[in-house]
Amino acid sequence: MDVNLQIRLKATLELDSPAVTTLQVEAQEIAGAQHIESSSLTIEPCAESALFVDVYGNPCRRLRLDAGEVFVEYAANVAIPYARVPHIHAIETDVMNLPPEVLHYLMPSRYCPSDRMSNLAYAEFGATAPGFARVHAICSWINQNIIYTCGGSTTSTTAFDTVGERIGVCRDFAHLGVALCRAMNIPARYVSGYCLEIEPPDLHAFFQAYVDGRWVSFDATAVQERPALITIATGRDAVDCAWCSFFGTGRVKELAVEVTEG
Amino acid sequence: MDVNLQIRLKATLELDSPAVTTLQVEAQEIAGAQHIESSSLTIEPCAESALFVDVYGNPCRRLRLDAGEVFVEYAANVAIPYARVPHIHAIETDVMNLPPEVLHYLMPSRYCPSDRMSNLAYAEFGATAPGFARVHAICSWINQNIIYTCGGSTTSTTAFDTVGERIGVCRDFAHLGVALCRAMNIPARYVSGYCLEIEPPDLHAFFQAYVDGRWVSFDATAVQERPALITIATGRDAVDCAWCSFFGTGRVKELAVEVTEG
Amino acid sequence: MDVNLQIRLKATLELDSPAVTTLQVEAQEIAGAQHIESSSLTIEPCAESALFVDVYGNPCRRLRLDAGEVFVEYAANVAIPYARVPHIHAIETDVMNLPPEVLHYLMPSRYCPSDRMSNLAYAEFGATAPGFARVHAICSWINQNIIYTCGGSTTSTTAFDTVGERIGVCRDFAHLGVALCRAMNIPARYVSGYCLEIEPPDLHAFFQAYVDGRWVSFDATAVQERPALITIATGRDAVDCAWCSFFGTGRVKELAVEVTEG
Amino acid sequence: MDVNLQIRLKATLELDSPAVTTLQVEAQEIAGAQHIESSSLTIEPCAESALFVDVYGNPCRRLRLDAGEVFVEYAANVAIPYARVPHIHAIETDVMNLPPEVLHYLMPSRYCPSDRMSNLAYAEFGATAPGFARVHAICSWINQNIIYTCGGSTTSTTAFDTVGERIGVCRDFAHLGVALCRAMNIPARYVSGYCLEIEPPDLHAFFQAYVDGRWVSFDATAVQERPALITIATGRDAVDCAWCSFFGTGRVKELAVEVTEG
Repeated sequence: MDVNLQIRLKATLELDSPAVTTLQVEAQEIAGAQHIESSSLTIEPCAESALFVDVYGNPCRRLRLDAGEVFVEYAANVAIPYARVPHIHAIETDVMNLPPEVLHYLMPSRYCPSDRMSNLAYAEFGATAPGFARVHAICSWINQNIIYTCGGSTTSTTAFDTVGERIGVCRDFAHLGVALCRAMNIPARYVSGYCLEIEPPDLHAFFQAYVDGRWVSFDATAVQERPALITIATGRDAVDCAWCSFFGTGRVKELAVEVTEG
Repeated sequence: MDVNLQIRLKATLELDSPAVTTLQVEAQEIAGAQHIESSSLTIEPCAESALFVDVYGNPCRRLRLDAGEVFVEYAANVAIPYARVPHIHAIETDVMNLPPEVLHYLMPSRYCPSDRMSNLAYAEFGATAPGFARVHAICSWINQNIIYTCGGSTTSTTAFDTVGERIGVCRDFAHLGVALCRAMNIPARYVSGYCLEIEPPDLHAFFQAYVDGRWVSFDATAVQERPALITIATGRDAVDCAWCSFFGTGRVKELAVEVTEG
Repeated sequence: MDVNLQIRLKATLELDSPAVTTLQVEAQEIAGAQHIESSSLTIEPCAESALFVDVYGNPCRRLRLDAGEVFVEYAANVAIPYARVPHIHAIETDVMNLPPEVLHYLMPSRYCPSDRMSNLAYAEFGATAPGFARVHAICSWINQNIIYTCGGSTTSTTAFDTVGERIGVCRDFAHLGVALCRAMNIPARYVSGYCLEIEPPDLHAFFQAYVDGRWVSFDATAVQERPALITIATGRDAVDCAWCSFFGTGRVKELAVEVTEG
Repeated sequence: MDVNLQIRLKATLELDSPAVTTLQVEAQEIAGAQHIESSSLTIEPCAESALFVDVYGNPCRRLRLDAGEVFVEYAANVAIPYARVPHIHAIETDVMNLPPEVLHYLMPSRYCPSDRMSNLAYAEFGATAPGFARVHAICSWINQNIIYTCGGSTTSTTAFDTVGERIGVCRDFAHLGVALCRAMNIPARYVSGYCLEIEPPDLHAFFQAYVDGRWVSFDATAVQERPALITIATGRDAVDCAWCSFFGTGRVKELAVEVTEG
């Protein structure tokens, strides 16, 4: 482990009435990929808190919060390998040989209606060799064709919308990557996380495609490989990886994220 | 176990080239709810077949099929209790106390964009007591407001579309039930299955809501409780429960379903 | 003419490069309905300005604006009758007898996809007597079922979206009224204008239905009849009545509207 | 006038109850472009029929039809010039100089939501010279990227859907051409009509862009210029040019179209 990252997230939530809220802000421990050297999470005030593991294997926190303001602060030191193992020769795994739990990631989801996008996907990427090269071609296409701008998409925007509107943020770039992969029978999942050098600083989103027997990370928001991608949660799309979900009437008043190296 | 049902499904698939195909047509063994007394499944010809369990716990078959026509025949005798246990007094389970794997069913999905439907749901059903009564009110509303007609919806139709278009088949009725429940923080899932007295005879779809600590079945296509609902698979929506999915170029040429009692 | 209204609109536009811009902010002279006693319009700076009449008969201004900020100021004194003629007994006009130019307003448009909404319309309003009563029932339904809130809709929101999302502003209320009328073969058009007592003060939108041989105004945003509705432009939907359209890259930086009586 | 075309259309309509119906099947007389040498139209039985001109200048028939089957037969001999005047050097008309009635065709409509497609349009065609060349580039892109197949789109499909789904029929090709032009401030309108060599024989749809002071026809369904395009009606999109619209409950049971030369 060669690179050390300091993550700091501060948020203020506001609830109109008591409500259960789930929180996914903590970087996962992933053997060989990211090691949490130290971390702290403060939720103030918090009536009740319980850690659980969701169906995708992500640790997740369920909180019972009272009405009013709630302050969340998360800090962590995370070590990651100096360089990610390159997978440029990774070949596509035959659907027949995919692990059963991976088949799930071939299907359309709320923000990734891949069932409507197969003509587009095969026309644009059908001539590229299956495997890493094809997913890489998908990322390049997204990077060249979608304008990265805040405010050009909403929380209802799907990957299908992004194909036509050609504008979005990291979340939309990840959804489009996922949808185009699935449209070509490549398992793909959404990843919420942290990243160095995001401008403006914020939580980040990217995606993973399952090639050659493993989940490989891709980030269509950057031409060059991102220097450091930290995983919080993985799932079908942003629905499964929201950093904060209110089951009641609440909103995020403030959110500040800082990722530094050293 | 008092009622005996005979299920018979015959289908012809047509593949342009060899393709992996998943099949979910077999009724599940569910302790206390449905018992498979005998069953047979023939897939002819089939290069390779493997049974697996999907992330939702459904048994599912993955097949490697060659190009050309493939004949599928499934027959089963299923015993179910004479009467389903009534749950009319079932109360809503607090989100804080839901089993972790059930939280999953609170989120929007491909065909159930519940995130866009909370104003509608609370306006129509917010005054009804939470729990069984509220889900029952949702079913009554769907039954009264949506026209049951083949050909009025497509495989792209979402529950949001159905709210405006007011037309659909069992699949759309189930999606709308699921979406309205989730919009009110009631876990809900889609169920594919078989049912007596479906006209014209076909596979059926209904939904389950999680109330008072258990999954309870609801079928908005009928005013009276359906006499017999047999479960094949459960999932977020139709995406997870398709009876036949081709990972390649294939189509269903013929499908005949027959369910009889005795 | 008994009521006198003072209208004052001030706006700042900002253009990145020279662009043609159309402006529809001036109240129309409509015999018997609204009389412009005096008015002034200043556009500063303005390279070129030309008045034209659009296909719907609305006066409209086409401007050639240079890059930079442009200030628009419109002021008018408008006299309207003390009370609008009531049309509560207005009957529906047979489609066969509609003036040819009115047939146009039976068809779906960008924001009013009435072709998808006929099941809903006939189910909700089919039992109400055709004519004024039916349009009035449509307005009451909208008023009761749609939440009036800024920020709950976007410039892409259609009447179909509003049926499901149940939230919007005057523009969305008008679109929904128009769409539901057309879905029942009642000609309906969108009206942009001014109104007393709008909170916060802004341009207003309402709609007109063609009953008993004339266009009658309806405003679903209010339970009680609005005291004064001034027409700027009429058309199929907001597309035809935008107060400001840039054919180039521009935006509205500020807009202030004031309508007073006296 | 050098080319002579024989058009023959036969249709059977079916009405559940008496209903007003509009019909647009007759080729227009257009000076210098198409001359109707002879024509006949039979509607049997027809209670009442009246010719009117719609807001776009198209002749259109309004019929009062009784319940039951109605037979429509149209036959015409149309002469068109041997070759259409080429407009390959046509330049774009400045929006400031467009005739007022043409401005209308810059705005989005039911099937052509051009407001959502400007990023795409400028990215793909912004580098092409404005005028004929740009519209031609739009047609080439559509022809190369959209699969022409019956059954891949529905009557609800918009140009925005077609961008993502990449499949459609002549109607969808025309909508997409119109939408992309408008997204770049080029006036464009939909044309319904007849054409030689359509396979299978049917009514046809294409579009016109306003360049260099005139409406020029484009047909994205063909790489080579179509040998003969006959105009029935022009309008914002298919909504304005439907060959048959029922204001009541009716449907088309049969439609056969034949266009021959000689």
